[in-house]
Amino acid sequence: MNKSLGRHLIAEFYNCDKEILDIVEDVEYHMKKAAITTGATIVTSTFHRFLPHGVSGAVIVSESHLAIHTWPEYGYASIDLFTCGDEVDPWLAFDYLKNAFKSIRTEVKEHKRGIYKDIGIPENSSHKTEVVK
Amino acid sequence: MNKSLGRHLIAEFYNCDKEILDIVEDVEYHMKKAAITTGATIVTSTFHRFLPHGVSGAVIVSESHLAIHTWPEYGYASIDLFTCGDEVDPWLAFDYLKNAFKSIRTEVKEHKRGIYKDIGIPENSSHKTEVVK
Repeated sequence: MNKSLGRHLIAEFYNCDKEILDIVEDVEYHMKKAAITTGATIVTSTFHRFLPHGVSGAVIVSESHLAIHTWPEYGYASIDLFTCGDEVDPWLAFDYLKNAFKSIRTEVKEHKRGIYKDIGIPENSSHKTEVVK
Repeated sequence: MNKSLGRHLIAEFYNCDKEILDIVEDVEYHMKKAAITTGATIVTSTFHRFLPHGVSGAVIVSESHLAIHTWPEYGYASIDLFTCGDEVDPWLAFDYLKNAFKSIRTEVKEHKRGIYKDIGIPENSSHKTEVVK
């Protein structure tokens, strides 16, 4: 087994609800809700609406992130769901967002990020920084 | 040829300079410099330093993003370089950051994001929203 610091879903969302993909407040709300759904803690975030349409944004969660770029005119969104640790599941965010954006068709590739043996650290190393008390 | 809206490099940076990876101002500076190096326009950004160590951040550029998470204690950083359009080259950001973080060893996977035929749009569709004047 290749233990890793994190898991990263590279997702393509096709045939989404074009209206939702163009409302920055809705996209931000759903991305933050998706982050919370995975069990992660939100640290900071930033969202932007382009003119005349399209939304981009990122939510930084505990040592990882969720990011989105929407092309409402094509009903398409590229979504990244990167989470760290065994307690946090990026697929929960995927399921939530597929439903929220009403995507009819998706494609996903899963990557392991920071594989322990590639970094050269022991299998019992922590995925998160230990807070010194 | 599979024309796509964007290109996304999923990069693992090993054996980096541990000190630089832990200074949020330096990481933010280099990520923004890397974004500019590709030819992209920075829209917004957010960075955070964890305690006792580690930095996470994202730079939203024109319809795409650059993101980083550092584990200074392991000399490791996970870096995402997602750019849109033919005029913007994510590999320029990769080269810049490899040098800036003094990474001795890297691994990269390149993904096409938003392949035109998968979205179902013609080959001459724009990767960016046309601004109505």
